[in-house]
Amino acid sequence: MKVNQNYSKLKENYLFSTISNKVSEFKQSNPNENIIYMGIGDVTKPLCNAVIDGLKKAVCEMSCEETFKGYGPYQGYDFLRQAVSDYYAEHGVKLQLDEIFISDGAKSDCGNILDIFGNNQNVIIPDPVYPVYVDTNIMNGNNINFINATEQNGFLPLPDKNIKADIIYICSPNNPTGAAYNNVQLKEWVDYANENNAIILYDSAYEAFITDQDLPRSIFEIENSRTCAIEICSLSKTAGFTGTRCGFTIIPKELKRDSVSINSMWLRRQTTKFNGVAYIIQCGAAAVFTKSGRKQINEALSYYKTNANIIGECMDEMGIWYTGGENSPYIWLKCPNNMDSWKFFDLLLNKIHVVGTPGAGFGKNGEGFFRLTAFGNHEDTIEAMKRLKTII
Amino acid sequence: MKVNQNYSKLKENYLFSTISNKVSEFKQSNPNENIIYMGIGDVTKPLCNAVIDGLKKAVCEMSCEETFKGYGPYQGYDFLRQAVSDYYAEHGVKLQLDEIFISDGAKSDCGNILDIFGNNQNVIIPDPVYPVYVDTNIMNGNNINFINATEQNGFLPLPDKNIKADIIYICSPNNPTGAAYNNVQLKEWVDYANENNAIILYDSAYEAFITDQDLPRSIFEIENSRTCAIEICSLSKTAGFTGTRCGFTIIPKELKRDSVSINSMWLRRQTTKFNGVAYIIQCGAAAVFTKSGRKQINEALSYYKTNANIIGECMDEMGIWYTGGENSPYIWLKCPNNMDSWKFFDLLLNKIHVVGTPGAGFGKNGEGFFRLTAFGNHEDTIEAMKRLKTII
Repeated sequence: MKVNQNYSKLKENYLFSTISNKVSEFKQSNPNENIIYMGIGDVTKPLCNAVIDGLKKAVCEMSCEETFKGYGPYQGYDFLRQAVSDYYAEHGVKLQLDEIFISDGAKSDCGNILDIFGNNQNVIIPDPVYPVYVDTNIMNGNNINFINATEQNGFLPLPDKNIKADIIYICSPNNPTGAAYNNVQLKEWVDYANENNAIILYDSAYEAFITDQDLPRSIFEIENSRTCAIEICSLSKTAGFTGTRCGFTIIPKELKRDSVSINSMWLRRQTTKFNGVAYIIQCGAAAVFTKSGRKQINEALSYYKTNANIIGECMDEMGIWYTGGENSPYIWLKCPNNMDSWKFFDLLLNKIHVVGTPGAGFGKNGEGFFRLTAFGNHEDTIEAMKRLKTII
Repeated sequence: MKVNQNYSKLKENYLFSTISNKVSEFKQSNPNENIIYMGIGDVTKPLCNAVIDGLKKAVCEMSCEETFKGYGPYQGYDFLRQAVSDYYAEHGVKLQLDEIFISDGAKSDCGNILDIFGNNQNVIIPDPVYPVYVDTNIMNGNNINFINATEQNGFLPLPDKNIKADIIYICSPNNPTGAAYNNVQLKEWVDYANENNAIILYDSAYEAFITDQDLPRSIFEIENSRTCAIEICSLSKTAGFTGTRCGFTIIPKELKRDSVSINSMWLRRQTTKFNGVAYIIQCGAAAVFTKSGRKQINEALSYYKTNANIIGECMDEMGIWYTGGENSPYIWLKCPNNMDSWKFFDLLLNKIHVVGTPGAGFGKNGEGFFRLTAFGNHEDTIEAMKRLKTII
């Protein structure tokens, strides 16, 4: 038998292991230094009370024969799909329940969605990028066209009419750059996709960080997007679900390719290779969308957003160019004095004991840039910025 | 863009929708009849107290910043992998923790595992069969060789040396037939796989129903299996996790093809397209393997096994040929008087108001056979058998 030869084309990404090794080395030589971690992409606030109550109630139901739940609907329970649909309606997006598929997180769907497309797709991926987009496409034997996200375009590249694409990855607000597309820019992508018979895979995992009321929170706020887009979202960053695992994917009924409904293909894929998300977890997820849940998650989001503002203000004071921070938990800054990413990393670690993420780890256009995250606590964030000012 | 053309080759399986339509029709004409459902493949007993306590404790941990869990290890927490490893050690199977991958259920892994093999694999699938094996292989463009499970071989087919296979599906105890391979028979498959450079995908989802001490509960009890087998297991039937979603896949380090470690390929697949199982669910799953958890799940298993015995004894009394029942929640019986599957279905529904599953729905060799399940309650099971005796 032959194994999938595409796997041999995957490159190991040593970004986080290199960071971890450098930090370990530093700690060994400097055991008493107080290191502040601002490279972390994980949330730190616990699940809110409304979610905890939803989870507890569901656990109790599972203990009793009358309320026990066995196999559920593979696409998710209606109560959760209705909650998602109501949430989207607030931004003017109308969704039918069978356009919403509940999943165990955006990462699974982001990888698995390629199942339903043929091999040898022409794919557009921005550089710098969340590495999962790249690796999943290599595994599927697709042809990747990197498009440049740079300081010049504010890390928000627009369509290049010379590239004929089948699949387009857009993450907005972006990981790692924090940059967010506006309506006009997204409309350009939607028009390009419709013209080229392409499909946009829109990753909206960070939509809850958008504070600017004029920015779209969903690709489906854009006219004509229902014939060319799939949206993949997650409660990981919205409600601290990184370890609780729940997300959803939206596929409009109008989306067809080769005269085939993409919604029906995904339904077939999920009913064959997936058995739904745990009932308990879906009950916790539904609580996110209740009135008290919304209030409580907004408190955690505000906490992170305050950190982002603290970092952003510090960059402004120092005259450092950056994207993100305002509508994103990420601050993507240009390394001062044209330093390269890893040199800046070493400087921060060794001089002020702050750990961030070198932009070069996310692609060639990340070289010379650096990512700080807002998921720490206020005190550490303030202290890190104070230290930063001492060396810039 | 082109969609995956293999999806157009999938056939709709109307088995369960046809059953459901027939039952609805009957109910409309006979609103007062007490129907007994013995077609159900889902558990009915609630989660045991040990699991409920494990889940509750984990929910509490998620409510507190000090004990909150964000992203966990993609392959599962060590505490759960250790519990699985200890469980296997009881049957003499030694596993390293990094040979165990925790998943959201056997169905996901069963479908996703094909990612790491190339297309155009030569696959052996027994007929009758759990339809997911067939559909996932059609989606991947593999070439399926059905091998005959029949009354003559006790629905336990052995290797045909004339077929050169890459992948072999074995489910034991089997769904739908309830038949279970013994050590000698499994050894034949292991030797065949090693000789042919093939990989056995061993579905052990029903291993907890094995009562016969001489039957293997894992493929890894068989000599030389570590160079040719992957085992996919689930807590769905073992501990009532059909709606709680947790399973695991075991890939030995020795398993290589094309000089590539299959364990490493699966690790790469899972770290790229999966983000692990919810911490809360893993805590519930770990409780299954504790002393009190084991005692409690055995009570539910005994309850189902008693039902299986009731059905089996009734078949013996009536002289009806069947497989399963002893080491399985399924009884696979030969329809009396050479009736075909659907005719027998109609007879049971209309005359005695019992719903089962026609064997023909699982493949051509299922014609003339019928599946009853032990997941109901005692009273209904006894009543159904009483009714059955009145018409046979």
